[in-house]
Amino acid sequence: MILQPVLVDGVWRQPARPCGTFQAVNPATKKTLPDVYPISSFEEVEACLKAAHEAVDKLDSFSPDSIAQFLAVCADLLESRGQALAEAAHAETGLPVEPRLRTTELLRTTDQLRQAAAACRDRSWCRATLDITKNIRSKHGPLGGPVVIFGPNNFPFAFNSAAGGDFAAAIASGNPVIAKANPGHPGTTKLLAEVALDGLKETGLPRATVQMLYHFSPEDGLKLAAHPLIGATAFTGSRTAGLRLKAAADRVGKPIYLEMSSLNPVFVLPGAMAERKEQIAQEIFASCTIGTGQFCTKPGLVILKGDDQSESFLGIVENLFETNPPGLLVGRQAMDTIQAALKKMTRLGALILTGGREFPGPGYSFANTLLCVSGQQFLKHPQGLQVEAFGNVSLFVLFSHDAQLAEIAGQLDGNLTGTIYSQSRGHDDPLYERIAPILRRKVGRLLNDKMPTGVVVTAAMNHGGPFPATGHPGFTSVGIPASLLRFTALHCYDNVRPGRLPEELRDKNPTGSMWRLINGEWTQRDVA
Amino acid sequence: MILQPVLVDGVWRQPARPCGTFQAVNPATKKTLPDVYPISSFEEVEACLKAAHEAVDKLDSFSPDSIAQFLAVCADLLESRGQALAEAAHAETGLPVEPRLRTTELLRTTDQLRQAAAACRDRSWCRATLDITKNIRSKHGPLGGPVVIFGPNNFPFAFNSAAGGDFAAAIASGNPVIAKANPGHPGTTKLLAEVALDGLKETGLPRATVQMLYHFSPEDGLKLAAHPLIGATAFTGSRTAGLRLKAAADRVGKPIYLEMSSLNPVFVLPGAMAERKEQIAQEIFASCTIGTGQFCTKPGLVILKGDDQSESFLGIVENLFETNPPGLLVGRQAMDTIQAALKKMTRLGALILTGGREFPGPGYSFANTLLCVSGQQFLKHPQGLQVEAFGNVSLFVLFSHDAQLAEIAGQLDGNLTGTIYSQSRGHDDPLYERIAPILRRKVGRLLNDKMPTGVVVTAAMNHGGPFPATGHPGFTSVGIPASLLRFTALHCYDNVRPGRLPEELRDKNPTGSMWRLINGEWTQRDVA
Repeated sequence: MILQPVLVDGVWRQPARPCGTFQAVNPATKKTLPDVYPISSFEEVEACLKAAHEAVDKLDSFSPDSIAQFLAVCADLLESRGQALAEAAHAETGLPVEPRLRTTELLRTTDQLRQAAAACRDRSWCRATLDITKNIRSKHGPLGGPVVIFGPNNFPFAFNSAAGGDFAAAIASGNPVIAKANPGHPGTTKLLAEVALDGLKETGLPRATVQMLYHFSPEDGLKLAAHPLIGATAFTGSRTAGLRLKAAADRVGKPIYLEMSSLNPVFVLPGAMAERKEQIAQEIFASCTIGTGQFCTKPGLVILKGDDQSESFLGIVENLFETNPPGLLVGRQAMDTIQAALKKMTRLGALILTGGREFPGPGYSFANTLLCVSGQQFLKHPQGLQVEAFGNVSLFVLFSHDAQLAEIAGQLDGNLTGTIYSQSRGHDDPLYERIAPILRRKVGRLLNDKMPTGVVVTAAMNHGGPFPATGHPGFTSVGIPASLLRFTALHCYDNVRPGRLPEELRDKNPTGSMWRLINGEWTQRDVA
Repeated sequence: MILQPVLVDGVWRQPARPCGTFQAVNPATKKTLPDVYPISSFEEVEACLKAAHEAVDKLDSFSPDSIAQFLAVCADLLESRGQALAEAAHAETGLPVEPRLRTTELLRTTDQLRQAAAACRDRSWCRATLDITKNIRSKHGPLGGPVVIFGPNNFPFAFNSAAGGDFAAAIASGNPVIAKANPGHPGTTKLLAEVALDGLKETGLPRATVQMLYHFSPEDGLKLAAHPLIGATAFTGSRTAGLRLKAAADRVGKPIYLEMSSLNPVFVLPGAMAERKEQIAQEIFASCTIGTGQFCTKPGLVILKGDDQSESFLGIVENLFETNPPGLLVGRQAMDTIQAALKKMTRLGALILTGGREFPGPGYSFANTLLCVSGQQFLKHPQGLQVEAFGNVSLFVLFSHDAQLAEIAGQLDGNLTGTIYSQSRGHDDPLYERIAPILRRKVGRLLNDKMPTGVVVTAAMNHGGPFPATGHPGFTSVGIPASLLRFTALHCYDNVRPGRLPEELRDKNPTGSMWRLINGEWTQRDVA
């Protein structure tokens, strides 16, 4: 049996004594794809660690411009190989080639890489802070160990461990990467790792700056997240796996950044409902079903008042869920997870309005599913009913009075996003004022009159939030330059001789335009 | 028996069903001090939590100027009560009234409070980031729960849970505080909590913004650090206690910031030794014995070449350690910890050159202690020999050749600081270039030709470092405004209506001088 090669220390090589093998499955046909991938041994993981450790030393001597150049070359190569990438990802994830993969997601991915390259060239991201009088200077710098990235199943490019947001952020901040492919799309990840290696060759960066393994055992994953040689871990995926990794990393004080689960509550206040019911129903349907609901920011919980208005509203939404055919789910496991979540919710009193069953056809598909529960019932099981069904499923909670709405808001877990739709001329303002402060503390991003899906890559974005949405409420995984700061340590230089300072902290501004905080003032000037 | 009252919900009240009592001891006389303090029940802890939870809501409606005013009033009150405070702290810690307590440490404390007040008024600390085109705006904001602070035994003012750096940072970033006194100086902490309460009364802030308990069981401490109602924990103290709290907080995803232990290695390179042996010996002695060595940044490990130079150098240092009388240690436990550390070090081959025993006299005092070990022996037990002896103790490691020095550096644990002394005209540069990059990754603050004690409160400071010095390499507990960011969540506002935005994110700059990152540029201007 020929196994697909792994990328270790700059070389595509046959796996050393793999623990097993696996193959990807086409979700559109449920057919196993031909390529066979190794489940790496810990010996192989350690080979990556050793090579990455050496790359750390070497990378230090490369300028930010060289690192930026590598990211830019990756973006160019992704574009030139876009068709092959989209086809591979389509076969492994069932996501449509157009517009999703070939256009939307690829563009997002190249844009992220280019934004990271620009941040790297600009250098302002490192927040150089200079106290000239006392000659103490600090900035954020790389961690001194590789960043291990576990990518999710739902975005084969934009969050891929070998090309996505975490990858771009880790590289731009000067760290080597050990990418673990999501086993749902190993072939896509291989193509992306090929891009990375070609980029490394073209720009002369250390070859072990990017390494890639397809899979290893969960136990080896825990050992890796706690390994003395790593700098940090970035994980996007399920809460169960995330919490296990977190425990392993926390125990030895290794930074870990997790994006685990989120229900993204959407509050539709009565005035908004009276004003623009049809429009909101359309938006909710679109947001719940884009990517077959497999977005981290899908509204899994919609809270509205249980009255005549909402009854007719529910009718509209139900009709949209029912009459539109569902998309594909990424795999068998996604179906199982949804089934388990529905079982849990219905046992706790939620009612299935539509869907709730597999959708007939050749692929992995689940009927668009809408559930509903009263506010009173929700408050009996606020934890049990906050369960993520990762896919085209949403639970509607019908509150009976304003105090109950506030209580529901108060019971929410940490989430990536929280949204409030309110009447455009201020009719809902008193209720907004009551709910928004409660919601503010529970979410990373607070939205008005707009669905949370669509996470724009901008400096002001927060794709993060309180536990259990992530592991720390102060960091974002999307948005450059903030996302880079996750993979850094604060480096202070006290009385260090001028010639020994990193360029960013010398009197002369290294780019002429880098922003630095000098004696309390943000400036692009040299030290006078 | 009359127990000292606790500060709960804005009132000094008799403890409710305490679990026990304790008294402080005067380290200068080993005599128990008269006041009796309660060990609080968890019921009392929960009363604090409930009151703090309500204070969170109320605090949100106060302007940064009001919060700044409170911090400034605290600083003023501390000054006016300086003599009483210094006397109380002297009785409980044995630290000299002058210059240490009354002048140096009090000044540092009021300076910190005033810097925090200035940061609060200035508002730039929250790093407002605006994307005007996409109408996405974000900033750091309070955690939505109180910050629980565990203060250390060595700085009764500057790191006190009711007045020190963590206190100032937590309040300035808009969070209520639950202060746990260090049981070494409960009376001092009571006086500081009185200052805080008087400050709250004078400025009209919610009374439960600062609460204080003297003590509770370690188990209740773990429950508190993991409590759903808290925002975060800040801890300065021993590694053992810190790691237990960390595990409890990590398990439930509550942020915790720890400052636990550090050896602060000092490398004296051969050229520096040849050039200014006498001066460096004096500096090492001063740095190892200031505050009787009970500084987080005391050089616990000094690395130098084992040759004729260093032999005579060791002689000078030894003489200084031996002939100068030691100061007082904060308590019995400090003596025990030192004894245990010495036992461990000598068992692993370290030799005691001088000291190593209690110092005769009425108080808790330990002879200035110098140990020494060869580089070869150190490398046999690099972990076991990196043990913090919190006090006037230092271990000298004598390396035999440059490669061994690099190996020693490579074996170092995470530390707050790392220092390299080198020859002034560049003779040591090749060795510096070899050692500095290794050390850089192991420490928060890298110094040249200067001892690490003396942690200046400036924006460029890093009093932090890789695990196990702290819990996360990206944060500092000293240095304003950076220390404030620990106690915040990243708050993003996406399409939120203008009137609903916090002032810091509106088009108009709220102070006219606050620094904001608008479309990639740091500016004090309004949005055009």
